[in-house]
Order: sequence, then C-alpha cells, then structure tokens
Amino acid sequence: MPSAGPTRRRADAERNTAAILDAAAELLARAPDVGVGDIAKAAGVGRVTVYAHFPSREDLVRAVLARAIEESMAAIAGAASSDGPAEEAFSRLVRDGWPVLSRYGRLHEAAVRALPAEEVREHHDRPLEAVRALVERGRADGAFRTDLDTDWLVTTVYALLHAAADEVAAGKLDRGRAAGVLRTTLLSVLRPAPSGTGPESA
Amino acid sequence: MPSAGPTRRRADAERNTAAILDAAAELLARAPDVGVGDIAKAAGVGRVTVYAHFPSREDLVRAVLARAIEESMAAIAGAASSDGPAEEAFSRLVRDGWPVLSRYGRLHEAAVRALPAEEVREHHDRPLEAVRALVERGRADGAFRTDLDTDWLVTTVYALLHAAADEVAAGKLDRGRAAGVLRTTLLSVLRPAPSGTGPESA
Repeated sequence: MPSAGPTRRRADAERNTAAILDAAAELLARAPDVGVGDIAKAAGVGRVTVYAHFPSREDLVRAVLARAIEESMAAIAGAASSDGPAEEAFSRLVRDGWPVLSRYGRLHEAAVRALPAEEVREHHDRPLEAVRALVERGRADGAFRTDLDTDWLVTTVYALLHAAADEVAAGKLDRGRAAGVLRTTLLSVLRPAPSGTGPESA
Repeated sequence: MPSAGPTRRRADAERNTAAILDAAAELLARAPDVGVGDIAKAAGVGRVTVYAHFPSREDLVRAVLARAIEESMAAIAGAASSDGPAEEAFSRLVRDGWPVLSRYGRLHEAAVRALPAEEVREHHDRPLEAVRALVERGRADGAFRTDLDTDWLVTTVYALLHAAADEVAAGKLDRGRAAGVLRTTLLSVLRPAPSGTGPESA
C-alpha cells in the first residue's frame, strides 16, 4: 500500500477534526459531563486521535464553544448591523440567535463546568458586544431604559438567554415557544419603566 | 495525659466541622476552584481531618451550599410568609435574601463546577418554592403578569439573582446598589405588560 502523501494526511486530519467537533457538540449538548472516550466513539476515531487534535478534554470543550460562538455571530450579524428601530433589531437578534443557542443545548453548562468562568464569559465577548451596541442605540433614541446601567442590561440578556436554553434542554420550557417568551421577557426589562413604577417611585 | 472522653471528642469534631465549613464558605466565595489543602489550612486543621468529615471536595462544596441555602431560607422566611400585597412581599424577599446571596459570592459558581446541574438546582428548591408562592399570589390578585408561565418567571428570578451575585463578585456591579437594581429589574419582568406592548401586540 503506498504511503499517504502530506496533502492526503492533511485532508484526513481536517476531516477527523470536523468529525470530533461535530460529535463533541452533539454529545455535550445533551450530556455536559460526557467523556473523551464516548466522543471518540461517536466520531468514529480512537481516543489517541482525539488527543492528537485536542490535548485535553478542556481544549476540546473550548474548541466546541468557540465554534458555537462563531455560528452565533454569523446568525446575528444581519440583525446586529441593521439600521431600523432598536427594539425591532433586538427582536430580530433574539429570533436569529436563539436557534443556534438552543441547538447547543447544555454546551454552556459543559463549558462552565470545564473552563474558568472568566474564560466562558470572554468567549461571549463578541456576541455580547453586538447586544451592547443595540442596547446603547436604544438608550440613545429613547426606546430602551436609562435608569439601569448598560452593563447590567447586557448581563440580563446573557443570563436569560442561557437560562432559557437550560430550561429547554431540561424539558421545562417548550422549544417552539422559547424565542417568543425570551423576546417578551427581555423587552419588559429593556423598555423604559412606565412613569410612576420605576425605581424613583420605590 | 488522660485520653479525651467521647463527649470531648464529639465537641472537638463539631468545632472542626464548623471551622471547616466557615473556611470553605469564605474561600469558595472568592475562589470557586480553591483546593481542600487551602481550606484545611484556613480552618487550622490538617487535610486528613477535612477528609474525615467530608470524604471528597464535592461533599464539602455540597455541605457549604446546603448551609447557605438554610441561611437564605431563614433570611426570607418573614417576607415569604407575609400577607401584604405580593409586590411588597417580593421586594422584601429580594431585600432580605440578597445580603446572604451576595455574601456567598462565587459559591454558586463553585457549586455549578463541582456538582451536577440538577443537584445545584434541587438545593434551590425550597427558596424557589417561596418565590413561586409569591409569584402565584401576585398572579392571582392581578399584581403580576399571567402572559408568561409561572415556571419561567421563577427561573427568571433565580437566573437574575445569581447573575447579580456573579457581577458583584466580579466587581462589575456595585454591592450597595445591587438589591435596588435587582428589585427594579425583577418587577419589570413580573408586572403585567402595559396594554399594547405585550406579546399579543408583537
């Protein structure tokens, strides 16, 4: 049998990497503590091959998370850069980003368990910057409230998006209704408080 | 030297358990990945003594979490059982529960990293039942919204309380302002949507 040339070996390696990431994403979405052995089996490769590409389980979780964030960014790019009213752009951002977040199920939980919290949050910097830009635009034109800090409003969006994904993954929130529930909840937080009910009247 | 009797040994053991739990709570609040060795040192005992009381680090985190939940329950008991308007009772619950939650800093993160997600959530069942009872009371008397499910509203309260504690622990939200920010945010979610802006108009 002729030995494979460098081009062929590179193609094999890329195919293996993709298969490992696909299998890891699928398994972590359902079982955040799944081991490298099960991921290798699902990818159709040996454990040694997984470790050749990802020296530790942590590295593999990190790579799956990074890819999920890339997909989220691609999904929300249109909504994030749109010109219309901030509230409509925000609704589109939730609508477009939710399917990706939802598909990744319990991956966020897997990441929180495997990686330092600061690193998990840093991976989210780019999508959260898109949220921040929309929140700031809405605050500037009066569509969103200004009695709470932008940082906290962005944190609220992040926390509730992931809480909804967790609830759907746990079978406690209907997948089909989740985007609408999220939109309603988040707009209730973002819209200016009706006069007489804001913190100034507390 | 006379050997210590069983009463003395029991008193020593209880003192050690309390010292270990106190040290673990204090260290986990700041450094969720702190090891048993550092906790033993802070408690003034050896690692062997820690393992005699808590067979694994997981058991120790579990015990600290259980104690924190007990303290939270004691703190919110008055607000949870009060008769007044649901909104006022809810505001008191946040005001009374927040100092305990806030003092435990990054313990929730430590628990999420050390224990299965289902178990962390089960530990929260009792305080969340108190929140649920108030939410249901407010829905029944018209103070709180009914266009979103009670389960989701309770999840929102849980997610935002812990998000606020994380932000305070990370130095991103002012500790003194957090309870007011939480109250404003959560009441924005719980209050009925002003007519014409609810999901039915989406």
